[in-house]
Amino acid sequence: MVNERVKKLRDIMLKNNLDAYIVYSFDPHSSEYVSERWKGRAWISGFTGSAGTIVVLKDKAGLWTDGRYFIQAEKQLKNSGIDLYKMAIPGFPTYEEWIYDNLDKDAKIGVDGEVLNVKTNKELCETFSKKNIEIKYMDLLNDIWQDRPSIPMNEVYKHEIKYAGKSRQKKIEILREYISKKESDYYIISTLDDIAWTLNLRGSDISYSPVAISYLLISKSKTVLYIHNNKLNNELVSSLKKDKILIKNYDTIFEDLGEISKTDSILINEESINVKIKNSINAKTKNTKNYIAFLKSVKDDIELENQKKCLIRDGASLVRFLHWVDTNVKSETLTEINVNEKLYSIRKDDSKFVDESFASIIGYKEHGALMHYSANEETCYKLKPEGMLLVDSGGLYLDGTSDITRTFSLGEVSDKERTDFTLVLKGVINLTKAVFLEGTIGANLDILARKPMWDNGIDYKCGTGHGIGYFLNVHEGPQRISRDLINVKLEEGMVLSNEPGIYREGQYGIRIENTIVVVPYKESEFGKFYKFETISYAPIDIRLIKSELLTEGEREWINSYHNDVYKKLSPLLNKKENKWLKNMTKEI
Amino acid sequence: MVNERVKKLRDIMLKNNLDAYIVYSFDPHSSEYVSERWKGRAWISGFTGSAGTIVVLKDKAGLWTDGRYFIQAEKQLKNSGIDLYKMAIPGFPTYEEWIYDNLDKDAKIGVDGEVLNVKTNKELCETFSKKNIEIKYMDLLNDIWQDRPSIPMNEVYKHEIKYAGKSRQKKIEILREYISKKESDYYIISTLDDIAWTLNLRGSDISYSPVAISYLLISKSKTVLYIHNNKLNNELVSSLKKDKILIKNYDTIFEDLGEISKTDSILINEESINVKIKNSINAKTKNTKNYIAFLKSVKDDIELENQKKCLIRDGASLVRFLHWVDTNVKSETLTEINVNEKLYSIRKDDSKFVDESFASIIGYKEHGALMHYSANEETCYKLKPEGMLLVDSGGLYLDGTSDITRTFSLGEVSDKERTDFTLVLKGVINLTKAVFLEGTIGANLDILARKPMWDNGIDYKCGTGHGIGYFLNVHEGPQRISRDLINVKLEEGMVLSNEPGIYREGQYGIRIENTIVVVPYKESEFGKFYKFETISYAPIDIRLIKSELLTEGEREWINSYHNDVYKKLSPLLNKKENKWLKNMTKEI
Repeated sequence: MVNERVKKLRDIMLKNNLDAYIVYSFDPHSSEYVSERWKGRAWISGFTGSAGTIVVLKDKAGLWTDGRYFIQAEKQLKNSGIDLYKMAIPGFPTYEEWIYDNLDKDAKIGVDGEVLNVKTNKELCETFSKKNIEIKYMDLLNDIWQDRPSIPMNEVYKHEIKYAGKSRQKKIEILREYISKKESDYYIISTLDDIAWTLNLRGSDISYSPVAISYLLISKSKTVLYIHNNKLNNELVSSLKKDKILIKNYDTIFEDLGEISKTDSILINEESINVKIKNSINAKTKNTKNYIAFLKSVKDDIELENQKKCLIRDGASLVRFLHWVDTNVKSETLTEINVNEKLYSIRKDDSKFVDESFASIIGYKEHGALMHYSANEETCYKLKPEGMLLVDSGGLYLDGTSDITRTFSLGEVSDKERTDFTLVLKGVINLTKAVFLEGTIGANLDILARKPMWDNGIDYKCGTGHGIGYFLNVHEGPQRISRDLINVKLEEGMVLSNEPGIYREGQYGIRIENTIVVVPYKESEFGKFYKFETISYAPIDIRLIKSELLTEGEREWINSYHNDVYKKLSPLLNKKENKWLKNMTKEI
Repeated sequence: MVNERVKKLRDIMLKNNLDAYIVYSFDPHSSEYVSERWKGRAWISGFTGSAGTIVVLKDKAGLWTDGRYFIQAEKQLKNSGIDLYKMAIPGFPTYEEWIYDNLDKDAKIGVDGEVLNVKTNKELCETFSKKNIEIKYMDLLNDIWQDRPSIPMNEVYKHEIKYAGKSRQKKIEILREYISKKESDYYIISTLDDIAWTLNLRGSDISYSPVAISYLLISKSKTVLYIHNNKLNNELVSSLKKDKILIKNYDTIFEDLGEISKTDSILINEESINVKIKNSINAKTKNTKNYIAFLKSVKDDIELENQKKCLIRDGASLVRFLHWVDTNVKSETLTEINVNEKLYSIRKDDSKFVDESFASIIGYKEHGALMHYSANEETCYKLKPEGMLLVDSGGLYLDGTSDITRTFSLGEVSDKERTDFTLVLKGVINLTKAVFLEGTIGANLDILARKPMWDNGIDYKCGTGHGIGYFLNVHEGPQRISRDLINVKLEEGMVLSNEPGIYREGQYGIRIENTIVVVPYKESEFGKFYKFETISYAPIDIRLIKSELLTEGEREWINSYHNDVYKKLSPLLNKKENKWLKNMTKEI
């Protein structure tokens, strides 16, 4: 049996003389989360995981997805005629290998060039050239997906200068210097958070990401924002015009790019710019790193000051929530889903709250071991006064972005759970206390967080920390703390998460996550040294700590941290909450 | 004033229509140490440091060297007409930039293609192409350097199978599999230690490196060793012939390569193969990593067993030496030079000793702060019963290579010296005790050694550890422990140095260096974990340790290590030495 949509796709492939068609899960802007319009992979296959690629051939079809989704994909692909290919599992080909092996010489593949980045496209072309297989760029889904959602048209608003720190003129000036330095004439930017940052604009076209679908083209003398203009109110239009920013309709970028003189040079970041953009350019292009990502990763004083205030309020919200769970778990019917709703409603009370910064991960008992768990009616657990609850959540606020995880005890827990919790805490403290020389990258520091686990033959299968946007995406590059060789130096003002964990499949999961910022430590004849400052405030469950496993220094750290937590949060809490917090932050 | 040799070079440049000539410090085999024949840079400039590049233009000339040699170079270049350009110092151009800026369009540069690797050559060509500057490959030194030393012609001998572990047939078989895997027909190898390893041969053409000048060409059916055949005795010739290895004269490789069919494909490592080799090839070439470097970095059981025995004997030699210094420093006239001679003579007593593995670094007081110090008559210090002596030395033995550093007290030392020594020791222990998951690279581990220093605002300006050859070069790739992003996973059987330090300019230097090997630790549901085993044995001066700065675990480590040192070395020492060692390894 084959699903109807795949059948329709095959019909139209035939009309277009295509032997294969690839459906990705990307949007034209290389966004982490995509709006409904670009969920074509889910539409055609029924598989709703966050990552996956579909390839349809004339006689068979496959889905490629990663370990998080094997079980879900098998279920959702049943009777679809689409086979599951497990990524990174020995014995399964990659989708490129599979296409290469299954197609004859001179075959033709179709793909929507608007959602394929230049770098991936180059790799595909190189692979397929050996069989003279050609790629045709066409969006076939558009012809068969009749109720396809349109591009979101939500309102755009300005990110006020009191929050944003630097003006858009200043930022554009910096980018023009970069264009000059790179001996180029234009810089085309398609990543939505980079556009939002540059122009001090925010939007809500994508869940969890306060951005608007748009392109930005900067030359030495002009700045053009390509956006559906019904998204901008008059005030914003005049403010942008005042700053000499031209506003043109979203779709006109392709024509405009085509008109740039062949002798001019345009900077593009090949990892994010899509093929449709690239192919509309007649001028020379120069590949560049995503320079704005570097600029915006280093937060200035105003951004940091706001972010710190924001995380104190967010911490108070989390304490209100934790107190509420702790008080009601015995008497009320609490579930993974309804506590999530409660957490959202508490955060929403904050006047600067805009949205969640990601879908909360609230996992009770063994659900805590699923790193990207999201409860649904089928899987949802009722909470009982026993075991551990993992809560990983965050908010987007006008003055910052939060991302914090606490794992806390609902009642009796095992000795092993407490040992593991203490190891994770040791990892958090180890990384927090790092001192590092200028030039250090995340891959140099990762082991500090992992060491207490590794010493015990335990590992967590994810990175230790990611960059965090400022009232922007909760996952932001280019910096990162992990074993991976990402050559990005940690610089003063960079904000990161610090989130080691232990995940025991079928048993429980523990993660403790704080937000940290790179600050100066000392300068000597040997160089400039940095350290981290923790700017998340919420109690780390002392009932789960085996104090005897901590060193004196670690004990001092947790006591001093809890002292800060109480001092910063108590003014924002009521009497009952304060009493509870006092007890949760007492010395150990 | 201009030195005569530069003048002569300019004359001959003129005859050849060259506007510039580059003199490198390399040999045709990308060796770390080069034989006298290829010390043309020293010959023409008078500058004898281990690294440097000379560029001669029609009207000026420059030397580029690094921070180790600024003072020496200034002295040695006086009145030579060659200006010093300091590498990695802001304000100084690189030699490429300098050539580019000083030459006109269409200029011609000469360089000996036999000592320039393909990769560097590509980079030069790309840089210079913008001005249409052409590179001509010719060895002009040959014409003006009348008493130029010839290629060394020292005897080659076999590395016996009881030491070598794997037979040369087995190794060639592995390489043939690699050639097939890479869909190639030939593999040309020019790096001398890789050739020595592959064929289980050793030589002595280069100081500190038991290798012979040669090339190796492997195809699916043939193996050809290109070497001056007077280096091989009859027995060796027949043994090689028995193993189906053709022996041809060193210089005939160029012709042979030229005769390989154009449709065939030859693997070359562009970072080590020289341009003359490359240019003699008409067939296709494919760039490959240095695969033999990977193979030989993982020592097998026989190699490790020998290496361990070797380091015990070498440790006993070092103890004999340390005891002798400690006993005689008050009564005898000891100098940096004569203790070096003593150390050499002690090591030489070992029947398996072949050569030093590098020029010993013996630095008293502030000389210890010079990382690559080598005493000469001018600089040599007399030792007094006070302060610290740094001794970094090693030997090449038939059954292994040693590289060990001990810094020890000759009498009174300051509190600061003892604090620094203890920090360095903590760094050594920290790295030694590392537990790490499969896939970990050196850049992930480096901070463990550096942490005690960084926490105190101190850094050492070098890596923490390098690979060590097995009766081969003391510095061996591809693995390394440093902050650098070198993507080489640490694998079971890899041997490395562990050598943090503190270098206080004008005051003193401290380094403690052990040899460590990667061994399995445990396997769990989270993966395979490794740890290090220390295989160097010599006392770490407890008189310099501030025990109160050590954790309980660190104290346990040093006591247990010293217990091992005594157990392993005492059977090899006389009564007096044993008494001394007992005292030097007592519990702290």
